[in-house]
Amino acid sequence: MITAASNSRIKRLVQLNQKSKLRRTEDVFLAEGVKMFLEAPREQLQEVYVSESFLEKCSCREHLEEVGYEVVSDSVFSKISDTCTPQGVLCVLKQFHYNIEEMLRDKAPLFLLLENIQDPGNLGTMLRTGEGAGVSGIIMSRDTVDLYNPKVIRSTMGSIYRVPFYYADDFAAAVHQVQQAGVSVYAAHLRGKNSYACQDYTKGTAFLIGNEGNGLREETAELADCYIRIPMEGKVESLNAAVASSILMYEAHRQRATLEK
Amino acid sequence: MITAASNSRIKRLVQLNQKSKLRRTEDVFLAEGVKMFLEAPREQLQEVYVSESFLEKCSCREHLEEVGYEVVSDSVFSKISDTCTPQGVLCVLKQFHYNIEEMLRDKAPLFLLLENIQDPGNLGTMLRTGEGAGVSGIIMSRDTVDLYNPKVIRSTMGSIYRVPFYYADDFAAAVHQVQQAGVSVYAAHLRGKNSYACQDYTKGTAFLIGNEGNGLREETAELADCYIRIPMEGKVESLNAAVASSILMYEAHRQRATLEK
Repeated sequence: MITAASNSRIKRLVQLNQKSKLRRTEDVFLAEGVKMFLEAPREQLQEVYVSESFLEKCSCREHLEEVGYEVVSDSVFSKISDTCTPQGVLCVLKQFHYNIEEMLRDKAPLFLLLENIQDPGNLGTMLRTGEGAGVSGIIMSRDTVDLYNPKVIRSTMGSIYRVPFYYADDFAAAVHQVQQAGVSVYAAHLRGKNSYACQDYTKGTAFLIGNEGNGLREETAELADCYIRIPMEGKVESLNAAVASSILMYEAHRQRATLEK
Repeated sequence: MITAASNSRIKRLVQLNQKSKLRRTEDVFLAEGVKMFLEAPREQLQEVYVSESFLEKCSCREHLEEVGYEVVSDSVFSKISDTCTPQGVLCVLKQFHYNIEEMLRDKAPLFLLLENIQDPGNLGTMLRTGEGAGVSGIIMSRDTVDLYNPKVIRSTMGSIYRVPFYYADDFAAAVHQVQQAGVSVYAAHLRGKNSYACQDYTKGTAFLIGNEGNGLREETAELADCYIRIPMEGKVESLNAAVASSILMYEAHRQRATLEK
């Protein structure tokens, strides 16, 4: 059992929680909690750490034995945990490497194209809702918050294991690539005159969503095939970015489900 | 100018930020930031505090002069602010007092009925999206997080000033009252067999949403006229409560907009 916070493996875990660059260099990320442990794809799983008290009372011991684990004292676990009340299990996993070509294999692909989303909770929620709505993948500009940030991972509720995603160094080129494959790109934009609900999303569809405070950059918005807007009553000027994305993705899901009938 | 954090008015503001009970006793709440100040209904506004440096560079001086304000030093302002990077303006406002009868005056009312929502960000987002989707009001069980919590207020983006809401001591009675007025109550429930998208929300409609982790209490779910579910692909077990509410409210909005055409 590891009982010293000064242990080099513990120090590394603390740094992996905090440093996006180190995660990238090592090509790993951390995922915490029972659900995240149980749903972790076996082929990605590299190390598992459990706290002493978690091991005593956990109901997933069999699963732990199968994959192997390291016990750390409760006080050490609180150092490597990103939460105030840790559940007591933390995994080190290999990062995922998807490419856009794979995502385009779906018959009528559905994409979320995200530019410079900054709130970890928003990005995590978009992944979670995206899986629910059946997206083919999520493509992000390089300046979007790191998906392997512990706060993002937590709010994905496991969807990070299953939704393909891609950070594009050249976001405009990625948008073009999707369009070249016959996917229509709809930009959620205040300048949009068409209600989102009047468009046909049953064919290849991508929703282009901009930064929480500033929306899409002018040059990015211009890439879109069509501007759409979500109508708003009262004095609401905009919706939360995760909410807006969810409404759009589920409208696409609704239309596709209706079509199948 | 107030320069001492020990000033009794400053101490009161700090407490009003932290204590739901004190807010209720005094029948007031705090709202921070330029947007919240500019959108504050004049008849609710009781006091305005600005930081020294805000006053120097602000563009709303005329508006400030009209309503009257008190200047505090920047260091004192940081004490009364709930944020890490305060904008420098904070208002004390009278609490709102709505009743369900008023909300029922809409021709085809649209309600959100919330049981025990705990996340301030979720509740604030529901109010914001609710205003956008044109809800008549939001009715909450008494154990729902306090809407006057500074985190909720911030995430409403001003909608707290405009969306009618009501905390029901007897939540079941409130649900009955809405039903008695001819409003159909739809519970978002895992047991729901009907997709949310197959129902007609053009008449009086209320969506019953439960706690983030546990969903609706059994006895509350039983009050519903109909169980609905949001279909989910992949391995998603549930959606974020604010996201689920938004999808439902905007489906009602979509149907109503289509009907008007």
